[in-house]
Amino acid sequence: MYDLCISNGLCFINNEFIEANIGIEGNRIAYVGKEDVKGEFEIDAGGKLVMPGLFNAHTHLAMTLLRGYVEDMPLMDWLSRVWQVEAKLSEEDVYWGSMLGILEMIKSGTTAFADMYFHMDEVAKAVGETGIRAVLSYGMIESGDDEKGEKELKIGTEFVKDWDGAFNGRIKAIFGPHAPYTCSPEFLLKVKERAEELDTLIHIHVAETRQEFEDIKKRYGKTPVRLLDDIGFLSKRVIVAHGVWVEDDEISILKERGVSVVHNPASNLKLAAGIARVTDMLNAGVNVCLGTDGAASNNTYNLFEEIKLASLLQKVATGRADALKASDVLTMATRNGYRAYGLNGGKIEEGMLADIIMLDAKRCNYVPSYNPLYSVVYASYGCEVTHVIVDGELILEDGMVLTMDEEKVIDKAEKLKDKFLVA
Amino acid sequence: MYDLCISNGLCFINNEFIEANIGIEGNRIAYVGKEDVKGEFEIDAGGKLVMPGLFNAHTHLAMTLLRGYVEDMPLMDWLSRVWQVEAKLSEEDVYWGSMLGILEMIKSGTTAFADMYFHMDEVAKAVGETGIRAVLSYGMIESGDDEKGEKELKIGTEFVKDWDGAFNGRIKAIFGPHAPYTCSPEFLLKVKERAEELDTLIHIHVAETRQEFEDIKKRYGKTPVRLLDDIGFLSKRVIVAHGVWVEDDEISILKERGVSVVHNPASNLKLAAGIARVTDMLNAGVNVCLGTDGAASNNTYNLFEEIKLASLLQKVATGRADALKASDVLTMATRNGYRAYGLNGGKIEEGMLADIIMLDAKRCNYVPSYNPLYSVVYASYGCEVTHVIVDGELILEDGMVLTMDEEKVIDKAEKLKDKFLVA
Repeated sequence: MYDLCISNGLCFINNEFIEANIGIEGNRIAYVGKEDVKGEFEIDAGGKLVMPGLFNAHTHLAMTLLRGYVEDMPLMDWLSRVWQVEAKLSEEDVYWGSMLGILEMIKSGTTAFADMYFHMDEVAKAVGETGIRAVLSYGMIESGDDEKGEKELKIGTEFVKDWDGAFNGRIKAIFGPHAPYTCSPEFLLKVKERAEELDTLIHIHVAETRQEFEDIKKRYGKTPVRLLDDIGFLSKRVIVAHGVWVEDDEISILKERGVSVVHNPASNLKLAAGIARVTDMLNAGVNVCLGTDGAASNNTYNLFEEIKLASLLQKVATGRADALKASDVLTMATRNGYRAYGLNGGKIEEGMLADIIMLDAKRCNYVPSYNPLYSVVYASYGCEVTHVIVDGELILEDGMVLTMDEEKVIDKAEKLKDKFLVA
Repeated sequence: MYDLCISNGLCFINNEFIEANIGIEGNRIAYVGKEDVKGEFEIDAGGKLVMPGLFNAHTHLAMTLLRGYVEDMPLMDWLSRVWQVEAKLSEEDVYWGSMLGILEMIKSGTTAFADMYFHMDEVAKAVGETGIRAVLSYGMIESGDDEKGEKELKIGTEFVKDWDGAFNGRIKAIFGPHAPYTCSPEFLLKVKERAEELDTLIHIHVAETRQEFEDIKKRYGKTPVRLLDDIGFLSKRVIVAHGVWVEDDEISILKERGVSVVHNPASNLKLAAGIARVTDMLNAGVNVCLGTDGAASNNTYNLFEEIKLASLLQKVATGRADALKASDVLTMATRNGYRAYGLNGGKIEEGMLADIIMLDAKRCNYVPSYNPLYSVVYASYGCEVTHVIVDGELILEDGMVLTMDEEKVIDKAEKLKDKFLVA
């Protein structure tokens, strides 16, 4: 008798959808196979696709509140408008913005995300209440100012100490120095040292735009990844968001140091940053995962959109219709995200974290189903998700979020916008 | 008293969403304004966004049956597998494949589409039954064979004569010579002549891939658009699908001749064809509209996906975050499609065809709603559509298609796949 079992579904196991039953004990998958399973709680997955939950590996969650605030402006003008609003975000705003982002993620099949922002206690609370899994970091900006750096590192460290392991381990708290263009090498090394002391990870923006690439080269005489490597910053502890502007030998460096890279295709297009060298990085053996980035530069947290987009962009960028195959991009969106952040999940396999989603296989866009893998990767809208299980707990059932009042969150977020409109 | 009225919605008028009521008489919009409206049938659009229906300007509808049949192969291998299956498609298959495609289009807000395929009588029947609007053409392939050309032109001509204007004008039947690499200049001129005689239009693939561009140059000593212009083929009657590989002066030719171009962003990425010069074409004054292409090379008929993708691709291709603005890409997906095919629709305006869709403004991904235009363009999944009106008739209500048995269509399409699997 398992705590929870899922029967009669087509389960994504070893890169294909096959008939299997799943038994869950506590927060882990305890059984996967053809035998009948019984549970305290049973889900009939007939007519459903059962797969590991999606991992959104780079977000600024509460930026939902800035979704559509300003659009279609040159990048620098847009950024300055966005920063004006961000400066006004209160703790309460960040809480509700996070709730809205989590609502969207749960409904579109994301079971875990990695966030970097501020007022992070509020994000952690929202994660606790809603049942989703998260890797959280306070985004530290030091700007070469020692005093500011001390303050930032203190906030970041306290956040790690306060929240790491909270809610049965659903929260992992790590460090988030913003980027090499907003943090000095000296500060980054302090962060590295602190991360080693606390045995935790580092989430950082690197090589997002050509501008950044050129600026770093001008300032330090070397490109971003080389700069970080030369100071000894790079290791398995480091997760790089974007990595759009990397040269061949920088890809080798990322691989050798064990750095993971988060590809954010929609955001990279929207802000005109470029198309990351995902195929080259995967071929080199780099662990590449997928993210949406903040809602202001996307404008959704629909990871199914990123899955299709990532694959299509590699096909056009490499000139090969067989580039970034369906199973590889789905692995990026699931297992690689969990791996990057040191979590034993992202696979339907005994011993893995029970973070599982179910999709309605009978949607008109999924028919006919020669191979459900292709339906999921190339034909999903993002609204096919019927059930979401995180850490062994059911949090979405028949499309309804069980852990939050959807209408209240939407009304609250809608009202908050007035505060920014008068700006 | 109107036949149908829509009250209390936020309506997309002159590039913004504003409060307005709409009165419909027969198949036309008869009133748009602030006054109360009464109708035989009344729709309360409170909490809804009301906008012109989407025009999918390039499809091969029944290719739904090949969706996900083979994926992630080099282009030529993929094509040969697809052609093997297409050769087996019976009239009945094309009917059910079309029904499935229309089902998906209606549910995702498409009110009209332009299709080029074979067994077109079956497509026309499906259009008639389901209430959608369509511009249909029999795809003629002559391959420089006079006898085959005669046969093809006969089928194409009969199709135009049989179906043009059917179902209260919901069907427009036009000519569909496949492409300059499958039809000789002599044949294309015969088609042009016939189109003039019958006063109708021509839908043709041009300059989709670099391979085609180079092949035509090798064969004729000039690039595709120049070739077509030199033989006098181009005019306002011509709608070019793709137009990815066009040089500066070819863009000027397209503009001068009044040719419309259908941009198919997802398909162009998936088949590694390239990124079309949409910004340059729009700047030159070319009428550019949007399409999904066939489901095998996409794999959906979700035009909301193409809207966002088209805008994002232009931003990265031009290096400008302010390229292809929200209102411009939405015009491409609506008004420009209707214009290309000579239909007076795609706008909420008195006198226009009553092809209107409604979206649920309270979806979590649409909140907060600083400007619903940005929600629709950058944050749609494609499943926000609640109501669809075509030619003055309601065909989707609260997400349910009123004109077809959804379950039956899905079951039928799912069963048909067995026929191709044993191949």
